[in-house]
Amino acid sequence: MINPSSSLHPTYALADWGTTHLRVWLTDPAGTLFGERMSNEGMGGLKPDQFQNVLEAQLTAMNAPRGLPVMICGMAGSRQGWREAAYVEAPAHFSSLSAQATSFQAAGRSIHIMPGVARLDAKRPDVMRGEETQLLGLGIDEGVACLPGTHSKWVRIKEGCIEDFATVMTGEMFALLTQHSILRHATNNHDGSQSKVLPDDPYFAEGVTTGLTGEGALSRLFSVRAGSLLNGRTPQQSIAHLSGLLIGTEIMESARLMGVLSDDVHVIGTGALARLYRAALQQANRICHVHDGGALVRAGLLAAANRIYTAEPRAAE
Amino acid sequence: MINPSSSLHPTYALADWGTTHLRVWLTDPAGTLFGERMSNEGMGGLKPDQFQNVLEAQLTAMNAPRGLPVMICGMAGSRQGWREAAYVEAPAHFSSLSAQATSFQAAGRSIHIMPGVARLDAKRPDVMRGEETQLLGLGIDEGVACLPGTHSKWVRIKEGCIEDFATVMTGEMFALLTQHSILRHATNNHDGSQSKVLPDDPYFAEGVTTGLTGEGALSRLFSVRAGSLLNGRTPQQSIAHLSGLLIGTEIMESARLMGVLSDDVHVIGTGALARLYRAALQQANRICHVHDGGALVRAGLLAAANRIYTAEPRAAE
Repeated sequence: MINPSSSLHPTYALADWGTTHLRVWLTDPAGTLFGERMSNEGMGGLKPDQFQNVLEAQLTAMNAPRGLPVMICGMAGSRQGWREAAYVEAPAHFSSLSAQATSFQAAGRSIHIMPGVARLDAKRPDVMRGEETQLLGLGIDEGVACLPGTHSKWVRIKEGCIEDFATVMTGEMFALLTQHSILRHATNNHDGSQSKVLPDDPYFAEGVTTGLTGEGALSRLFSVRAGSLLNGRTPQQSIAHLSGLLIGTEIMESARLMGVLSDDVHVIGTGALARLYRAALQQANRICHVHDGGALVRAGLLAAANRIYTAEPRAAE
Repeated sequence: MINPSSSLHPTYALADWGTTHLRVWLTDPAGTLFGERMSNEGMGGLKPDQFQNVLEAQLTAMNAPRGLPVMICGMAGSRQGWREAAYVEAPAHFSSLSAQATSFQAAGRSIHIMPGVARLDAKRPDVMRGEETQLLGLGIDEGVACLPGTHSKWVRIKEGCIEDFATVMTGEMFALLTQHSILRHATNNHDGSQSKVLPDDPYFAEGVTTGLTGEGALSRLFSVRAGSLLNGRTPQQSIAHLSGLLIGTEIMESARLMGVLSDDVHVIGTGALARLYRAALQQANRICHVHDGGALVRAGLLAAANRIYTAEPRAAE
């Protein structure tokens, strides 16, 4: 049924199923795209018995063949998701991810859900779910990756393994501070809106410089408020400084935590946020390679599907 | 009219007028107490033209003599308060605080509002308003003070001056993280309540240890979530760890920032929070002296009033 060299029909559905969204692609083993759909039916809004119908509706809308197998990553594999795909312990070899996927049948299809990765250290426990698939898609056996976001991940890859990683709540902290803390009076415009932070803003660079000292951000946050009160800093200047302070702190703390202070960094992200991280990393004299996160998750799902299905090759029709 | 040695009648009203509360005392120059009132008519809920009536109502309820002068500290002196009492620049000698109080007449009384103190450094601007009066009340010319709270202050006192200080948003960060962040799932009980953190909790001590490394808290916060997911930590254990992590971080970062890593620390605070700081400071091998914040603000207001009125002694009736 499945012919790895064919590109006349889709052979897999790939699904990135996060907390807030679902993205589905139809591909063949070479990555040829036969269809793509995006939906806001994320795991956060679904009960376990709703996942199958949501998926079938998306596949039907794409005219996916009956019995097409589905490779899923993300929060659909969490305890609150469709089926739990237990964490693989770090160091986790990339080949172990597809090997330890949770597999089951639903609506006549084989469903595979990628496991997350856990760091089982009592002093610094950590988890990832979804990012492991982007890292698999990155396709490197050695290096350092940074996945900026609400909960940024920093990852050390060694000998084909996710060897060490750390989650840094930079994006969530930025949101909390600018929405709920006293700093919002400094960072937000009079109508409550927030100016965009640009990577070439000197106030962003100033914040990065402070963050890169590695002395910690807790005792420096209030400067944002005081700079507004005493120095008449504008909301745009204040929010740029805060953003730089947090990103610079993230870069220094996580690099120190994992002993990767001078390595090249593969930034997996898109758009404005990736540009901010690139600017901050350049300020830290780090060589930076930016990769599109959406492309990598698809590449990782495809690699996992190929490992599962080409490991058991079947005869072409 | 005013007799500094008399204790038959009050000679001053003293008022601690913060954002959320107003506390008024009637005293004589020796500190004898003739009356005390507490109200939730804080600056935050008042327009500038309402302060006078609120104060008069409190004084009338205490049978305060007509014309009794009033010494005020706190946010009533901010730009959004009754009358702005401009910041004195650090290093600020304690005698300059009463000398630079804003003075005016209202309802036939002399009103004096203590100035705040500002740190006018472009790289680390900072402000305090209200704490300067507690520090005046502390009555030391050399030393290090810590005023724990929503916005903790760390202060270096030298040669009778508030020489340097730093605001650390520890309490606000703790509230934001346990109320609004993903960590709330780990730190809060099922009914949304939060367990009290006790100073002898080993999970508090563990958090303090991590914070005291001085490597920064941003990259360590997520451990609270992961420890709940992976290690089955209870909400009580998780909230204790988070509290310790933030307080330990505050102690190390601010001490390093001001070059006071081994000094004795005067903790100005009360109750459970002061006990947590004492435990954390002991873990850092710092000698700790705890002072009641409410008593110190009254002592500071009295010292300021005495400086103003004994500088211009008047004949007793």
